[in-house]
Amino acid sequence: MKKLFPFIVPLVMLCILAGYIGTPVAQAEEEVVWTLVGIGDADGSEVDMTTVEGLHSAINFTWVLLAAVLVFIMQAGFAFLGGFLQAKHMLNYLGQCFLDTTLAGLIFWLWGFALMFGGSGFPGAEAGGLGVGYSGFILHWNAYDVNTYMIWMFQMVFLTKGVVIPVGAIAGRCRYPAYIIHACFIAGVVYPIYGHWVWGGGWISALPIGSGGLDFAGSSVVHMVGGLMGFVGALALGPRIGKYNADGTPNNMPHHNMTFVVIGTFLLYFGWFGFNPGSTLAATDLRISVVIVNTFLAGAAGAVTALFVTWGKQKKPNIGWMCNGALGGLVAITCPCAWVPSWAAVVIGIIAGLTMMGSVWLLDWKLKVDDPLGAVSVHAACGIWGMISLGIFADGSYGGVAGLITGSGWQLLAQLIAVVACMAWCFAAGAFLWYIMKYTMGIRVREEQELLGLDKAVHGIDCYAPDVRLVDLEKLVRGGKK
Amino acid sequence: MKKLFPFIVPLVMLCILAGYIGTPVAQAEEEVVWTLVGIGDADGSEVDMTTVEGLHSAINFTWVLLAAVLVFIMQAGFAFLGGFLQAKHMLNYLGQCFLDTTLAGLIFWLWGFALMFGGSGFPGAEAGGLGVGYSGFILHWNAYDVNTYMIWMFQMVFLTKGVVIPVGAIAGRCRYPAYIIHACFIAGVVYPIYGHWVWGGGWISALPIGSGGLDFAGSSVVHMVGGLMGFVGALALGPRIGKYNADGTPNNMPHHNMTFVVIGTFLLYFGWFGFNPGSTLAATDLRISVVIVNTFLAGAAGAVTALFVTWGKQKKPNIGWMCNGALGGLVAITCPCAWVPSWAAVVIGIIAGLTMMGSVWLLDWKLKVDDPLGAVSVHAACGIWGMISLGIFADGSYGGVAGLITGSGWQLLAQLIAVVACMAWCFAAGAFLWYIMKYTMGIRVREEQELLGLDKAVHGIDCYAPDVRLVDLEKLVRGGKK
Amino acid sequence: MKKLFPFIVPLVMLCILAGYIGTPVAQAEEEVVWTLVGIGDADGSEVDMTTVEGLHSAINFTWVLLAAVLVFIMQAGFAFLGGFLQAKHMLNYLGQCFLDTTLAGLIFWLWGFALMFGGSGFPGAEAGGLGVGYSGFILHWNAYDVNTYMIWMFQMVFLTKGVVIPVGAIAGRCRYPAYIIHACFIAGVVYPIYGHWVWGGGWISALPIGSGGLDFAGSSVVHMVGGLMGFVGALALGPRIGKYNADGTPNNMPHHNMTFVVIGTFLLYFGWFGFNPGSTLAATDLRISVVIVNTFLAGAAGAVTALFVTWGKQKKPNIGWMCNGALGGLVAITCPCAWVPSWAAVVIGIIAGLTMMGSVWLLDWKLKVDDPLGAVSVHAACGIWGMISLGIFADGSYGGVAGLITGSGWQLLAQLIAVVACMAWCFAAGAFLWYIMKYTMGIRVREEQELLGLDKAVHGIDCYAPDVRLVDLEKLVRGGKK
Repeated sequence: MKKLFPFIVPLVMLCILAGYIGTPVAQAEEEVVWTLVGIGDADGSEVDMTTVEGLHSAINFTWVLLAAVLVFIMQAGFAFLGGFLQAKHMLNYLGQCFLDTTLAGLIFWLWGFALMFGGSGFPGAEAGGLGVGYSGFILHWNAYDVNTYMIWMFQMVFLTKGVVIPVGAIAGRCRYPAYIIHACFIAGVVYPIYGHWVWGGGWISALPIGSGGLDFAGSSVVHMVGGLMGFVGALALGPRIGKYNADGTPNNMPHHNMTFVVIGTFLLYFGWFGFNPGSTLAATDLRISVVIVNTFLAGAAGAVTALFVTWGKQKKPNIGWMCNGALGGLVAITCPCAWVPSWAAVVIGIIAGLTMMGSVWLLDWKLKVDDPLGAVSVHAACGIWGMISLGIFADGSYGGVAGLITGSGWQLLAQLIAVVACMAWCFAAGAFLWYIMKYTMGIRVREEQELLGLDKAVHGIDCYAPDVRLVDLEKLVRGGKK
Repeated sequence: MKKLFPFIVPLVMLCILAGYIGTPVAQAEEEVVWTLVGIGDADGSEVDMTTVEGLHSAINFTWVLLAAVLVFIMQAGFAFLGGFLQAKHMLNYLGQCFLDTTLAGLIFWLWGFALMFGGSGFPGAEAGGLGVGYSGFILHWNAYDVNTYMIWMFQMVFLTKGVVIPVGAIAGRCRYPAYIIHACFIAGVVYPIYGHWVWGGGWISALPIGSGGLDFAGSSVVHMVGGLMGFVGALALGPRIGKYNADGTPNNMPHHNMTFVVIGTFLLYFGWFGFNPGSTLAATDLRISVVIVNTFLAGAAGAVTALFVTWGKQKKPNIGWMCNGALGGLVAITCPCAWVPSWAAVVIGIIAGLTMMGSVWLLDWKLKVDDPLGAVSVHAACGIWGMISLGIFADGSYGGVAGLITGSGWQLLAQLIAVVACMAWCFAAGAFLWYIMKYTMGIRVREEQELLGLDKAVHGIDCYAPDVRLVDLEKLVRGGKK
Repeated sequence: MKKLFPFIVPLVMLCILAGYIGTPVAQAEEEVVWTLVGIGDADGSEVDMTTVEGLHSAINFTWVLLAAVLVFIMQAGFAFLGGFLQAKHMLNYLGQCFLDTTLAGLIFWLWGFALMFGGSGFPGAEAGGLGVGYSGFILHWNAYDVNTYMIWMFQMVFLTKGVVIPVGAIAGRCRYPAYIIHACFIAGVVYPIYGHWVWGGGWISALPIGSGGLDFAGSSVVHMVGGLMGFVGALALGPRIGKYNADGTPNNMPHHNMTFVVIGTFLLYFGWFGFNPGSTLAATDLRISVVIVNTFLAGAAGAVTALFVTWGKQKKPNIGWMCNGALGGLVAITCPCAWVPSWAAVVIGIIAGLTMMGSVWLLDWKLKVDDPLGAVSVHAACGIWGMISLGIFADGSYGGVAGLITGSGWQLLAQLIAVVACMAWCFAAGAFLWYIMKYTMGIRVREEQELLGLDKAVHGIDCYAPDVRLVDLEKLVRGGKK
């Protein structure tokens, strides 16, 4: 890690600097009236519902808000993936998933939204530059507006994904206070600033190459950020006890409940049907049907690829790999979903399945980074592939975005710049945070806590009660021994 | 309980009496034609879909029906909260959740909807007074109308919440027949009549104070009714065996699966995004975005508050409390969600988290009422706070509803009247029912049934099969002893 | 089985023959331009969103796509029903549910959609006859169109239901490769061809009797096909070891997790609210509210019927039966949901609950077919009842479809023809497939694999980790013995 510092720190400073230079993307906010009661269009009364234009808003609010609700339930999907962990760490992981959902949302309300979407032009969020935004705090004053609330809700549920993803990589050995600071740091700094660059009117979206750096629904903004932060965290924490043998070969750490894993994957898949098509921000954009079909197909292709390849290699159909293959395909299609035809979605999904497997092998055997839920492989590796795939497969049928298959390489270049910027930013920010935490508060639980299980050690209770027959039997057997 | 009778019974009779006095809120229904085929607008053909007005209906049907579907799945969330119980009572609880969902819906179809929404003006539901409605039975005749079916669906899923909430308070010791009568009584009498007062054109909504007694999505209609009925039931049944020590101090009864609790909380949160914003009954009312954001923020604030306060007191982050804190915040915001700004939603959530904790302490240590899932604290206590909070924080930006922060105390008074009426009605109705059941059929299972577990005792099977290794081991150990 | 061949094979050949005869239902597709980039209305730009007609599309896309998402999550509901199985087969079952979801979708993209909806008139899917369609492969060329993608998504999630249903009947003893071929055969042949007859412009829908053979949302297309294929599979595989005693009496095979069963039923119920009302393919058809109410009521009536009838007979309220009663009611209402009044939905649900129970008795005691999840009874038996019930209860209020209660028997005749055709087709196709597989690759796992559990035997791991205390205790006890 330390070896990377000399390269990363200047690069990220350049990125930020690049952001602040240049014309601000929007004019300064109107004068703010300080009052308990906001002054935006707080009840939508400025929209005339007796007109076609008014109904546009109603349909699109319906679409975006229901999509946001679908994205929200993905948090339960992530929580269920904890079935990959040993039972003794499950409650700790669940508690992190739930806290990510709530605490990160509050931070996004306090200042995250203002950093990310200041300058995007939503009412009350007019002020921001190419590097960071600075308007729309606590959704008040001019931001007390039905449009701004609508977009806030949709973006907030995305943010919580970016915060919960790394938890899968640091599970089973991270101190709870360190985890909380980490979650706040992603929610309040890492995610909103990178997000501003791509979605908030920042410099990546303004690149004068191709259509600018593009990420339709968040292969980089959500998944790469989450996966890369998880990678840095897993690197900083080191592997769980028992993951590596003395000779350096990795063990498969035992799962505790594969039903939870499969159901969690279903729930994530389900939520992705809000994640991607909702990102049109409009049902009046009928391309939503192409987006949702591409989303399904890439996930399906990733799942089937992972199942059959592992079956061929391990001689057994491995259900856990199939699930992660589906998730890999879904992560990859998240960036290009609106701009590619269905056959490309299948190809992207197949390659994502292979990418995920290659990445797991790389982490397990070469980098020796312990990633309990495969979060790095699914979200970071497939996120990178997704960003690149847009530059290859965009067919020009939507918004004029055109990739290699149409004969143009510029979009691919813009995508590569976005990928490099994301990696530089996350590595630098992550390394900074974990380094500070490691040498101040400490980041890893004590060995006896890890062996006992974080549930008992940190939260004082087990996640699951033992079968009552087992308790009886234990008394009988152990009692007789004494 | 008996001491309260002299106060309650006259009060509730006054409430009902007040209802029947005064002008009926609507004229009598048109003449009913008795036929197998209804005569309302049964296929929506009276709405012209080539006009903006027609599309209004289509958008709002989409919004309301999908919101209803989200509310429906909250039943699964409640079922998952059974993770708080001992495993031996789980199937019994699950069976109650499922029966509440189905049986209560049938009662609402037979007569509940007619009592609650008769007089509300929906086609076929025109006749009703200030105290109770009396039209719209079995959704036939003039009520065989797409509008009436739409509102029925939305209201029915709300009803089933009110029926399932008390089950969390009476779990683990109630006789199954008594539970069924209790569910029917809430679905057929308690809920529809209080609901009529607030939502069906009844006397609380007609109060000439402020904007009348208001409850946007059901802090009182659903949550207080459910929570208070649970309180009366828990009081009547007495605590579970093992809940209290000889010296009167309470024990934490063991949970069996915290994964279920966390996932259940996620599912409830998810459904709440239909519960509250769906209650506009229109997506053409763009305030839905404010409603959904407030809903999220209050739940998040409640969760974070409960986590950190208990962490400070118990020195361990308690995940179960965090979940109930979220639910408390959600219950509280349910009444004021449409009428307050986002900062107030956060304040309401924080206070709801504290209210929930205070209530648990009160029930456990002072009132000695055993509430296994915290249903009373979450739904009744936070429901009361939610009703009151509207009178404080309504900012006048929506429909002119204005609370203390705008300088007017009238709305607060109307809210207090609604709270008192709800408490009086539920205590009286609940005491009446449990008293009768106790001295006729019996309400509590036998001690040996409770010790064995209700699953085996009542349903004849266990919810979970033991691990097959345990069965083997048990044979080995116990076999050797004989 | 073999005795049926002489009757079935000619019948099914007649069915197919009937399909190919007659005028093709649509003209031949336009000339296809072979290109990487499709040429339909790929971005919806041919629809003018400044008009009421444009908004029609936006609303109906919103409705249909969100309904599709609800149907998708039913796969998780089916997966949860695996709680009925022994724990040792659970992962195998889960893997089948997930593979059905993904692999079947890919087949539908490759050719299934073209067989089923070729000739239906969607862009790029214009060519097809009365027996089978033959346009719309891989959603490209003219089929690269927002309308065609929209309908594909909705139909694909239906298909995956038809593929996953039989898995419940063949669980716990089928070889994994045989299961995969079976899934592909349903997805690629059985389902699309029968589906074409009813929904794709095929001969059943074109019957000149009543309104033609009708199936609103798939009592036959999805549920009968799935349930009947499961029946043939269960017959071919024979019962699980331990299901039947030497004297031919059946045993209740142990479940492993009833929480999963109840939650799974809730999830299926939830998804059904997309399944049925989504099948209008339009929210501008306000009949959706009647459809959703009927759906709820039939499920509720089935659940309550099954609970109380079994309670009366077995003297214990049986929660598993209640769940299957709900599912039976939902399956039955799936065909008639749009054409009957609410009272008829209740009646249909009650009879479906009884039908389900009668079918279980028939399979267990008379036919000796082992159906672990009750898939045949729920989906095939109640699907047949649902198809017939339309001919009885359709009240003429929607689209002029009229059954016995209006005095006309023609619709009932059309429904009976559809039922017979579905049974003939599924029995013939299923018998053909299983016969071939049995005498080539083998269909049943070895006895020791079944006893060990398919999870360990086929996938190499257990679904659930044993409690760590059990592992300790086991070492202690077994260690001491050695």
